[in-house]
Amino acid sequence: MSPQPTAAIIVIGNEILSGRTQDTNVAYIGKKLAAAGIDLLEVRVIPDDEERIIKTVNDVRPNYTYVFTTGGIGATHDDITAGCIAKAFGRKFVENQEALKIITEHYKGKFYQDQELLNSNRSRMAMMPEGVTLIENPVSKAPAFQIENVYVLAGMPSVMQGMLECVLPTLEKGDPFYYNTVTSNLLEGTIAERLTEVQNAYPKLSIGSYPFYKAPNIGTNLVIRGQDKTMIHEATEAIIEMVKSFGATPQIERQV
Amino acid sequence: MSPQPTAAIIVIGNEILSGRTQDTNVAYIGKKLAAAGIDLLEVRVIPDDEERIIKTVNDVRPNYTYVFTTGGIGATHDDITAGCIAKAFGRKFVENQEALKIITEHYKGKFYQDQELLNSNRSRMAMMPEGVTLIENPVSKAPAFQIENVYVLAGMPSVMQGMLECVLPTLEKGDPFYYNTVTSNLLEGTIAERLTEVQNAYPKLSIGSYPFYKAPNIGTNLVIRGQDKTMIHEATEAIIEMVKSFGATPQIERQV
Repeated sequence: MSPQPTAAIIVIGNEILSGRTQDTNVAYIGKKLAAAGIDLLEVRVIPDDEERIIKTVNDVRPNYTYVFTTGGIGATHDDITAGCIAKAFGRKFVENQEALKIITEHYKGKFYQDQELLNSNRSRMAMMPEGVTLIENPVSKAPAFQIENVYVLAGMPSVMQGMLECVLPTLEKGDPFYYNTVTSNLLEGTIAERLTEVQNAYPKLSIGSYPFYKAPNIGTNLVIRGQDKTMIHEATEAIIEMVKSFGATPQIERQV
Repeated sequence: MSPQPTAAIIVIGNEILSGRTQDTNVAYIGKKLAAAGIDLLEVRVIPDDEERIIKTVNDVRPNYTYVFTTGGIGATHDDITAGCIAKAFGRKFVENQEALKIITEHYKGKFYQDQELLNSNRSRMAMMPEGVTLIENPVSKAPAFQIENVYVLAGMPSVMQGMLECVLPTLEKGDPFYYNTVTSNLLEGTIAERLTEVQNAYPKLSIGSYPFYKAPNIGTNLVIRGQDKTMIHEATEAIIEMVKSFGATPQIERQV
């Protein structure tokens, strides 16, 4: 079995905490990491606040193989993530010449609404901690960066997704996580005992029970998750049998 | 000005970290707290793991006026939140007689698929730390609970929302947070400098810039957020003028 890499995400953004914007990056990154066998164990959402960003990055980064941050790396005054990361690592905050070259080549001589796209605010996006590795941005070009085990990504979903695609091949992988879902109209209270027996028989799997009450649909999703395909398959069969034994008809969604 | 209450949310759930389920509770609670003038300053998402739940609750609760947890209070083996909260507070984990009465009255003698709804797994939902205050569940009846400044809510959105409605009137309020949004087809790099001037003129407001690139729509949402309606109004007007000065047409969404 491969060693188990782990990860955390730090979402930097007032707009998520205020409820104005629905975050979708966590679910997206979570799925990609699961498929890469990297166990996402913690997410923190914090405001665009220097002291909090520095403290959170330094609290979190010793505990995981990888840390991903999202948000705060654009061209405006509220984009303070890069400078905070420099402070968190005690590094100088400098103009990254490679990043500046990419930004300059992309924006120079291009105009939008009569403004040349290359200006001092765009160049500001080349300011990074000293000694970072750039992360390619296939969507809007201005690169992100990696510093030790911390990957500093954009907050805009399309841009973040493009950057993550470039990062994933460079990460150490584990055994992928898979899950099957067995849905029925049985209630949690009905199946709880028998479900515990299945969980106890497969302690290496994580079996989750998620009830839903959206009239007229009432029932429970049972999710069987883990890294061992044979075990997932066996536990899924056991749960299907259990559901049938209560006279219900299971619907099954399988990854395995 | 009212004192400023603060809050954190702890989302307990493997299904959020795996990316299988898109969390929507944070955005929902965030909006409700903002309207109540309670400043949501941190969210943590953690797995259904005893040690992590206990540590996270104890790390977070001294730092905020209110802490809300979501998830892990149902009837199955993976619902371990209540027991962990008891351990975090060093209290006994006991059958709450008031909760048991509510659950019994609701489920006794009712049948679904030939099973009486009241069974030992349902009764298990009355297990809580000693000395809690119950939180009403207008949706599916089994109550949640409050212990000191920690409010232990369900994970299912409809149930969580019903519980939150019952909790909100009991919380200390601050001055509500409001925001206006000014959208235009201007790019961040274009407006960055002038936007910084507006932010500097209104240091008590939080002015955020959120670009979007969804071809053919390219542009930026500028969000002006704070508790002082007059200031928000003035800063919004300044930003509208700025957008117009670049020859663009602002679209405005106002709360103030």
